[in-house]
Order: sequence, then structure tokens, then C-alpha cells
Amino acid sequence: MTPLHLHPDRLFPADPRTRDIARNLFAGIRDLPIVSPHGHTDPAWFAGNAPFPDPANLLIVPDHYVLRMLKSQGVPLEALGVPTLDGSPFETDPRAIWRRFAQQYPLFRGTPSRLWLDYVFAEVFGIDVRLEAATADLYYDRIAAALATEAFRPRSLFERFGIEVIATTEGALDTLDHHRAIGDSGWAGRVVTAYRPDAVTDPDAVDFTANIDRFGALAGEDVSSFAGYLRAHQSRRAFFRSMGATSTDHGHPGATTADLSAADAEALYRKARAGRATAVEAELFRGQMLTEMARMSIEDGMVMQLHPGVHRSHNPHVLARFGRDKGGDIPLAGSFVDALKPLLDAHGSDPRLTLILFTLDETTYSRELAPLAGHYPALRIGPPWWFHDSPEGMRRFREQTTETAGFYNGVGFNDDTRAFLSIPARHDVARRMDCGFLAQLVAEHRIDEDEAHEVARALTYDLVKQAYRL
Amino acid sequence: MTPLHLHPDRLFPADPRTRDIARNLFAGIRDLPIVSPHGHTDPAWFAGNAPFPDPANLLIVPDHYVLRMLKSQGVPLEALGVPTLDGSPFETDPRAIWRRFAQQYPLFRGTPSRLWLDYVFAEVFGIDVRLEAATADLYYDRIAAALATEAFRPRSLFERFGIEVIATTEGALDTLDHHRAIGDSGWAGRVVTAYRPDAVTDPDAVDFTANIDRFGALAGEDVSSFAGYLRAHQSRRAFFRSMGATSTDHGHPGATTADLSAADAEALYRKARAGRATAVEAELFRGQMLTEMARMSIEDGMVMQLHPGVHRSHNPHVLARFGRDKGGDIPLAGSFVDALKPLLDAHGSDPRLTLILFTLDETTYSRELAPLAGHYPALRIGPPWWFHDSPEGMRRFREQTTETAGFYNGVGFNDDTRAFLSIPARHDVARRMDCGFLAQLVAEHRIDEDEAHEVARALTYDLVKQAYRL
Amino acid sequence: MTPLHLHPDRLFPADPRTRDIARNLFAGIRDLPIVSPHGHTDPAWFAGNAPFPDPANLLIVPDHYVLRMLKSQGVPLEALGVPTLDGSPFETDPRAIWRRFAQQYPLFRGTPSRLWLDYVFAEVFGIDVRLEAATADLYYDRIAAALATEAFRPRSLFERFGIEVIATTEGALDTLDHHRAIGDSGWAGRVVTAYRPDAVTDPDAVDFTANIDRFGALAGEDVSSFAGYLRAHQSRRAFFRSMGATSTDHGHPGATTADLSAADAEALYRKARAGRATAVEAELFRGQMLTEMARMSIEDGMVMQLHPGVHRSHNPHVLARFGRDKGGDIPLAGSFVDALKPLLDAHGSDPRLTLILFTLDETTYSRELAPLAGHYPALRIGPPWWFHDSPEGMRRFREQTTETAGFYNGVGFNDDTRAFLSIPARHDVARRMDCGFLAQLVAEHRIDEDEAHEVARALTYDLVKQAYRL
Repeated sequence: MTPLHLHPDRLFPADPRTRDIARNLFAGIRDLPIVSPHGHTDPAWFAGNAPFPDPANLLIVPDHYVLRMLKSQGVPLEALGVPTLDGSPFETDPRAIWRRFAQQYPLFRGTPSRLWLDYVFAEVFGIDVRLEAATADLYYDRIAAALATEAFRPRSLFERFGIEVIATTEGALDTLDHHRAIGDSGWAGRVVTAYRPDAVTDPDAVDFTANIDRFGALAGEDVSSFAGYLRAHQSRRAFFRSMGATSTDHGHPGATTADLSAADAEALYRKARAGRATAVEAELFRGQMLTEMARMSIEDGMVMQLHPGVHRSHNPHVLARFGRDKGGDIPLAGSFVDALKPLLDAHGSDPRLTLILFTLDETTYSRELAPLAGHYPALRIGPPWWFHDSPEGMRRFREQTTETAGFYNGVGFNDDTRAFLSIPARHDVARRMDCGFLAQLVAEHRIDEDEAHEVARALTYDLVKQAYRL
Repeated sequence: MTPLHLHPDRLFPADPRTRDIARNLFAGIRDLPIVSPHGHTDPAWFAGNAPFPDPANLLIVPDHYVLRMLKSQGVPLEALGVPTLDGSPFETDPRAIWRRFAQQYPLFRGTPSRLWLDYVFAEVFGIDVRLEAATADLYYDRIAAALATEAFRPRSLFERFGIEVIATTEGALDTLDHHRAIGDSGWAGRVVTAYRPDAVTDPDAVDFTANIDRFGALAGEDVSSFAGYLRAHQSRRAFFRSMGATSTDHGHPGATTADLSAADAEALYRKARAGRATAVEAELFRGQMLTEMARMSIEDGMVMQLHPGVHRSHNPHVLARFGRDKGGDIPLAGSFVDALKPLLDAHGSDPRLTLILFTLDETTYSRELAPLAGHYPALRIGPPWWFHDSPEGMRRFREQTTETAGFYNGVGFNDDTRAFLSIPARHDVARRMDCGFLAQLVAEHRIDEDEAHEVARALTYDLVKQAYRL
Repeated sequence: MTPLHLHPDRLFPADPRTRDIARNLFAGIRDLPIVSPHGHTDPAWFAGNAPFPDPANLLIVPDHYVLRMLKSQGVPLEALGVPTLDGSPFETDPRAIWRRFAQQYPLFRGTPSRLWLDYVFAEVFGIDVRLEAATADLYYDRIAAALATEAFRPRSLFERFGIEVIATTEGALDTLDHHRAIGDSGWAGRVVTAYRPDAVTDPDAVDFTANIDRFGALAGEDVSSFAGYLRAHQSRRAFFRSMGATSTDHGHPGATTADLSAADAEALYRKARAGRATAVEAELFRGQMLTEMARMSIEDGMVMQLHPGVHRSHNPHVLARFGRDKGGDIPLAGSFVDALKPLLDAHGSDPRLTLILFTLDETTYSRELAPLAGHYPALRIGPPWWFHDSPEGMRRFREQTTETAGFYNGVGFNDDTRAFLSIPARHDVARRMDCGFLAQLVAEHRIDEDEAHEVARALTYDLVKQAYRL
């Protein structure tokens, strides 16, 4: 068996002097609490505090990074325990799933999944041998045993991980019962929601019309008019804020925004609600709603997040057989400069608004996002997202945004994950990469070391809380 | 107070052996004269040699990099002393402006503005403490006192900076009185102009028709026909050459070129001049004029520069309140391969033509500009421009263009600035980054050290003079 | 005269500890045989085993990298011995060509051509002084003398280079006589062909209709129907497989694919064959043929390669005067996500298919190719191609693809060259750059050293043979 060892200098630059600086910077921030302002953990975990399931159903089946890599090398999702929508057979023996995964673990060399998983294995579960076919059962047994203990229940891990606050993401139709239960439980952990209204702002959403009916009912508003529909948003936003939300989140195909006249918006809404919007009109309606959300944010103080540019479920066979979020999403080329103009013309210079922009198209970092966020008071650049939430991705992000936007037009790190156990690992990677980048600036005499300490702390903690108003 | 110290090894790679090589390379070029073949300094400075104004109006109010960053963090341009077009109030106390800037100086960490400004403070003004709120007045007083002395007048600084030649940029309608005055003054400083005809080649320019009338009058040509209009260009170009110009410069929305028949060009000109060109026709006319300018360059030897791909004044509120060039310009995605083809088909293989291409879209470096400049004798790649005139921007430029275009299809460095005091700082950054890049090639045994010395000198001096025919 | 010395640590990272790791990794793979699964060497060389011509006609005249750089700096192709199509004069004295090249050798500083050529000079010909004007004749004489010896005949070099297998590329109309002759000769060298059917799948190909007639005749199929035309492909593919082919190759303007109904495909074929296809229909037909080729590959096991996105012969004057492949090709922006969907919807999840994607648009590495290959079992990412087959190009490739696609969704290295003597140089560069990248991962504790050894071997040898089924 090969030892598994998380080296204390991991991810720091190799040059010894630069590494020393990175080490010093990291020492100053490594123990700061985790602030997780955007992600997809399940509030039910913290409400019910039930034990997590077996190793495979905790760490493999729900991890779309793991699924996509294994599928790309010919392992069918059925063999990895992903439930089929039509009830056709899939692997239900978690140990068999785990063994398959262990055998393929070399595929993850050089990927962030490998870093995150090794951290979970070593730091969270205390395992000190490398995962491979020969250690699959040892791993399975050790993890399964740990999960059965009180110390590995969601709330215990939350506390052990040093999470100061975590945001989940719920749709506009969610009743937030789990958040209410967490609040009522007397547990001190801070779990807040975020308002993600795509199901009622995107005419292409499944069941859009029915969603709006239900939305109106939940809000107690007559949504037959656009004005009533907007009031319903205001009402739901207020309800989400009462459950701790400080932010909204919008997952759109592109960054299109619009700022129509009241009459045009009303007509467009009625058409969309009737299910008669063309593709162009659907895009226009989504764009109009971003501007409406910006207006509401100026009123109620909620921070907006825009996550555009994904071709969801690119593989129709995976969608049909297993559903969404199974590793078949592919980035699209992005474009912000013209797309955001209607919203920016209306509200981009308003310092009360914070709109955080994410991208999967790295070419927009230096060409669009840094110049835009380096000018408009309302704009901030979100951290490297999804495929780019990785050491090289973070390096490129810092190299390509900092010179034009500086550090303070960013918002620090997001883990953006549903993989709860990996949260400390992800923050560890981000903190180390930021310290490495800053160490290089110090080693090249581009900033002073005292400043780098301040920036490292800002990127890890201060800026996150400030940007997300947490 | 924190010391301010420009480290002699700043911007060099951290690895000690590579740094040694960079240091040696830099020692060979650091004292070469500054050749500044493209920029926007004001010839009136050198003609009149009046003292510069106060610190704020010298270093902050006219610096669009500084304005954009401060605005992005919510500091209104009024508070920074930017004059309003409608006469509404703006800060007029330069010390108050300076204090605001000093307080926000940490925003510039990691940006080139920080590098340039620290150089100006330390090297030009001899200040040895860091700028922060507590040292704002010390800075203000020291800089103000220096500016009142003979040694800080424009011509003294020009000489102190070791400028061998500097090019300014003037519109086709400029009478070049300041250049004439400089020539007549007997002062030895070489300040040349460059011909920027956008106001009479871009149908979308403000007052286009009136501009052409005035253009014809200045040139003494009947501009009612396209032929007459072209003769007016020839005449103005000759006049600019008599004031030292060796280059033209073209700031277009894109890189579109055209090569119409004489009849089509004539018809298009008449329509544009009459103010009836559609958006497509305006673009076509700009494109036609690039090809006409290329033809004239082949005749008269003026080097062409193309600076395409900026969405000027993206923020309409800033434009309306403060005018152009206030930090609200945003890059656009670029494309050269098809766009340049008409011009290249006509003149791209003519070694008498030099057309220097700039871009704000870094994706075009390796995909388009290096392959094009690595084939067409007429093409050269300009240095990293504007948002990319920075350490990481320069590193990416070298990494992404050198392998396909080599060093000698570039043109060395441009400072492209109106911030006169920062010119030595900008050349210092470029020289250091080039030496660092070359040092890495030497350390990795990709070129020999004697060659790196030659290339460093070429990039700093020889290639600039040769490419711009200075 | 300056010494020429290939440093044993060339291309390794400068940091001493990282370099040590790279050196160790390289020691483990440097002597592995060369597997060259895709390229353009001439099978006639190995069939006839005649001596190569003079130095200029071996190393300069056919090298489009060399031609483009020299032309970009004003050296006419005529002066470099490139034959004119119209018989107008061109340099025929190889020594004169060689001297011109030697004089311009500094242009290649920082380019991969320089690395490849220096390797050829030092390792293949044993020259130990640098090429420059003063050593031009020494070089010419040494190389000419060597080429006259038995040791420098194609088969001797093949063996000396340690080539285990090399693939050439032939059109669908090729009769593969040289491959047959090699097979019949009893020589042990393994030279296989690859099936490149562009001349009969691209309606924009020169003589498309006549090509199809000849194609049908060669295959003995009635190609008046689409079904017959497809059978002709099956027949030719079988013939190519009998000459060792394990792969097909497709050079298309873009990555468009299509999956039409049988009736629509039939109609489109008939229109294309009649020479009446519009530009859109020609693109659709090429796209349909990629999907047809994928279907055949699933049947017969041939690996597909797609090389899209080149504007061939961008300079019409070079095309008219000298023909194709003379250094006037320019990359185009690429896009795969929508373009490949028809093929992927049909066959992307079939693990029997291997489709290797190449690109000249590096922005697609992290945005499109790595996500696609990191999901679809049928997709693999080809190595950095053409303009990007260079140290920095390889570094960017690894940095931008590995984190999403891992190492094992790549296919190792391709030399893709017709410059036979440079093949060891190119593999040397690739092996060194891979070892350097892996060394950095090890130095930053992102993978363990034992794993890096395994990956280095995979990238050099195992993965190439597996991906190309060699």
C-alpha cells in the first residue's frame, strides 16, 4: 500500500523563497472560519442531522465531476449507482460502486477532484494509504464506520469544519421548511438560503406556466399582470430574507439583459406566461427579469449572482435516462459587453447594487469581466467557477483579472458545491492558491508582504462577507 | 509610515538563477534611451514648457486607469475633480482630491497603475514612504514643491528621462502649431506627431461632414469627389511628415478592411459625406480608408497602426456628464483573419508597407496575430495594449506570440500614454518583463545568453526605431 | 564560431528541485521507442530508400514553418527555391538557398523551428557550431556529405531514430503502392497509412465530381447513389486497413456534423456530386460524412481524427504562384459544442468509437474540448497542433485541459510532420515538456512521483498505442 500524505506545502510555488512567503501568508489565514456564500448543500442535512448514507452514495453517486470522468472512460452511469428514471437496473451495492471507483482512481490524476478527495480521505476520515483497487475495501470500511458515528453527522462536521455561515440555494417555489426547522432547532449553525427564481423567470423552464400559478399562490398575489408577478417576487424575496438570504442567483443560458417599457414588459410577460414566447422572446424575458431583479435588489439589498453560459444536459441520452446534473453539461462561449448594457445603463452605476458575474469562458476574464467590474460600481467578478474551480483555473483567474480589476472588485472564494465533505478541501485549495499567487507578487516585488497578508485575509474572509453582505 | 522602496530586482522571476540572468540582461539595456513611437502626450507641454499643475491635476484627474478603479469602488468622478460638461459642481480642491486618492491607494494592489505610480513617487519625486492616508499631505506637499521648480518643467523631465524621440498623436484637422513651435524654439528634444485621421475617415465621428469640409479647406483640395478627398489626405500626410511624423494611427471599432472599385468607393464616399451612410456602409467606408491609407503608406513611407476593438464610452452616464476617455471604455472580441483580407490581398505582401496591429482581445495573439504577422511581410504585431500593458499582460503576449511570429515581427514597446511622468516607469516595466521572459528562455536553454542580450536590445531600441522608421 | 550545444536540461523548469524531478522523469522515458500515429512523411522514402536530396531541398524548401517566417521578413519564396507553378524563375542553387537561410537564422529565436533544427544539426548531423552566415558553408558541406552516406538513407534513419511505427496520411484515391512496396520489401520498419478522404467528402475540393468517379472506379462500386458511395468508402477503408491503417483523418473548415435522414442524405449527395451544392450544403455534406465515418469506425474499428478550423491559403498570391502548403494558412476561431452535437447525439456515448479532436483555437481547450472529452466516451483530445506544437503551446495545453479531462482523455503526442529528420527532435520536445509539467505537479504535491512516472510513460507510449489502436 502506498502512503497517502497531504504535504503541508501542497499547491505552493516550487521556488523556495516564494514558497516561504506563501507559507507565511497561509499561516495567517489557514484557521479563519469558512464563509460559504454560495453553494448547493441540502438544508435537510442540517435540519434533520441524520447520518450520511454509505461511502458510495455520499461521495460518488452525487458527484458530477466524478461521474463525468468515469463515464468519459467508458464506465456506464448505471454501474456507478446512478438511479435510472425509468426504473431499469442500476448498481445498488455501494461497495461494488466504491470498488469500481477505486480501480479508476488514477484517471483523476491532475484534476481538482483528486485534490478534494484526497483531502477528504486524509483530513476528514484520517486515512493514510492511497486509494487504489487494493485499498478499496479498507476505505469503504473506514468511511462507513466513521459515518455511523455522531462525529460525522452533518452538524458535527459543520462545526468541525469551522463554518461560520453557509448559503444553500432554493427555488422561488421552495417553502424553506428545512431552514425554518434549523432556525427553530436552537442549533447555532448559520445556514441561510438564496433566492433562485429560474423556474418562474425562464419561459423555457419545465412547467413554467404551472410554476407561475403556484408562485402566485405561495406569494398570495394575482400574477395575471406583470405588476402582480413582480409583487410576488418581492414577497418571496422578503420571505427568503426572513430565512437568512442575502443573495439571489440566476442561471441563464447567456448574459442577455433588457430594460423594456412597462407596456412592452407587460405584453411580453403575458405571452410568456401563456406559453407562447418564441426563443427570442424567452431570452428577452429572462433578460428583462435580470433588470427587474436588479431594481428589487436596490430596494431590498439582496446581492445578485449571474451564472450564465452552460449548455445544460448536452447529452440527451444521459438526460433521458438519468435526469439533470449528471456530468453532461458543457460550457458555452460567453459575451457580456453588449449583453449587460441594458441593465448597466439603468443601474450599473448605482453603488447600492451588487451584481456578481461568473463565467465558464475564461477568455472573458481579461477582455470583458475585469474591464467591466473595474469600471461599474455595481459589478463584481465571481471566483473561478465549476470547471475552473481548480489550481490552474484559479491561477489564470488571478493573472487575468487582477491587473485590470484589482483584488477588491472580486468577492473571494465560493465553493459552490453540494459535496459537503469537500468544503474544507475546496477552501484549502483556494486559500493556498491565493497565497501562492500573492507570494509570487511579493517575490517579484510587485506588492509588499504586509499588503499581501491583508489581501490574503480579504480574499478569504473580509471581502466575502462584505460582498455578500453576510 | 511604511518605507517605499523600488527593489532593484522587481518584476524579475523569483528563481535565483533565472533572476541572475534577467539582471544581467537588464544591465545591458537599462540605460538605453527611451524611444516612444506612439502615445498621447500633449505637444503644448514641450512647446510652452510651462510648469505642470498641482499633483491631483497632473497625476489623478487625467488618468483614466485611476478614475475607473476609484469609480468601480464607488468614488464619484465629481469627487475626483473631473470637470462636468454641464457645469454642475465637482471637486476643485486638488488637495482634497489627492487625499481621497491616497486613502484608496490599496485598491491598486496588483495593478500596473500601482507599479507606475510608485515609480513616479520614488524615482521622479524621490519620496521614500508609501502612499496612504497618513502620508497624503506629505506627498502632496513634496510633489507640489517639486513641480514648482525648473527641474520639473516638461523639457527638463524630457531630458532627465532620456527620451531620444517621442511621438504624439494629432487629428487630421490639427494645425500642429505646437510642433512647429517646438521646431522653431531651438530646443533639441525630438517630438514628432502622428497622423490620426479618424475624424474624417469615420462616418460615425461627431461632425463628420463639417470635419471633411474643414479638412478640404486645410488641405486646399476640393473634397466633393473621393479623388479630391484622397488628395487632401496626401496633402495632410505630407504636412504631418514635415512635422516629423513617420506613422499614422487608426482607431476603429473593428479590423474590417475593404478594397472597392473606384466607382463603388466614390459612391460610398458621397453617401457618407452626405451623412446618409448606414451602419454597414460606415463600417465599409472605414475599411476602405484603411486600404487607401495602406496605398498612401506604400507611397510616402508612413507606418500604419491599427487600434481596433473598443466599445468607447460604454457607460452613457459618464459620457453625458464628463465626456470621453474617463475610464468607461470596454474591450470587444476581435477578429482579424477575414477582416483584414481585402487589405492584405491588395498590399499584404508588399514589404514597403508596415501595418502594426494592436488588440484588446488576447485570444487573437496565438490564433490570429502571430500567424498573420508570421506570414505577411507588411504586418507587425504591436505590443500589449492598454488593459494588457502590464506584467502579466506582457508575459502572455510574449508567450503567445513569440513561438509563431518570433521576436522580429513585433515592434518593441509602446507606452501609449498621456501620463508623461509615468513614461520612464512604463518603459522600466516593459524592459524588466522582456528581460525576465528572455531569462526564462535562457534558463531553459531555449536560446543562448548572447542571443538574449541581442534580443533585449532589439526589443528596447533597435526594433522600435526600425519598425517605426524613426 | 559559437558553439552549438544541446543542454541536457533543456526545456526543464528552472527551479532546481523541479528540474531534478523532471530529469528523473525524463530518464524513465527518453529511450522509449517513437510511436508516430499521425504525420505526413512520404512513404516513397521508405519504399525506395533513395538518398535524401541536398540540405536546402531536404530542410528548407519543404518546411512551411521556415518559409512563412522568412517570407514574413521579406525574403521572397522564389529566393528560397520554392518552385513556381508557372515556371517563372526561382532559385535552384541549393547552396545559395542555404546561405540565405543561415543569414536569417536569428529570426527563429524563441520558435520551435529553432529547437527542432538545432536538434537536427547537433544530434542527427553531429555539428557543434551554431548556424550563422559564417558557418553556412560548413553546415552545407557537412550535411551534404552525410546525406550521401548509407547511414542517412531513410530506412537507416528510421532505425536510428528508434521508430516503432509511423503513420503516413494518404487520400482516398491513393493506390498505396509505396506501402505495398514497403510491405513486400521484407524490411522490418512499420510504416502504416491513414485514410484521409477529404477529396471525396468535401464538395469544395478541387475536382470533386471527378474524384468521386475515380473513387467509385477504384472501389468497384456504383457511386451514383449515396449507398453506393458509402460502400465505396467501406471498401477503400478496408484496403487502407490492409496497408496497416488504424485511423482516418478529416481536415474540415469547421467541426460541423450532421445526421440527416437517409432520404435527405441521398438528395444532398446527389446535389453535391452534381456540383450544385451551395456553401451551406457543402458544409452540411462534410458534416454528414463525419457522422457516416463515425458509423463506419464503429464497425471497422478505425480511429477518427478531426483537424478543423484552418483558413487554407489565406494569401491568394502565394497560392497562385506556388500552390498550397507554403506557409500561408491561418487559424480560425473554433467552436465544437453545437457543431459536434449531431454526431455525438448519434454515437458520442459509444465506447467503440474514438474521435480525436484537434484545434488551432486554444480558447476551446478549457471551454469546450476538455469538458466534451471529459464526458463523452467516444471523444479524445489530440495534442497541441501545428502553431501550438511548441513549448509554450504544450504548457498551455496541459494547463488548460488536464484539470477537466485528466491525462487519459488525451492521446499523447503527434509529430504531424513531413520533416522526417525532425521527428526525434519533436518527440524530444514533447517528452521534455510533459516531464516538466509533471515535475511541477510533483513539486507542488499535486501528484506523487511514482504516479508521474506512470503518466509520463503513458503520454509517451502506452496511451498513443492504445488511443490509435496501434
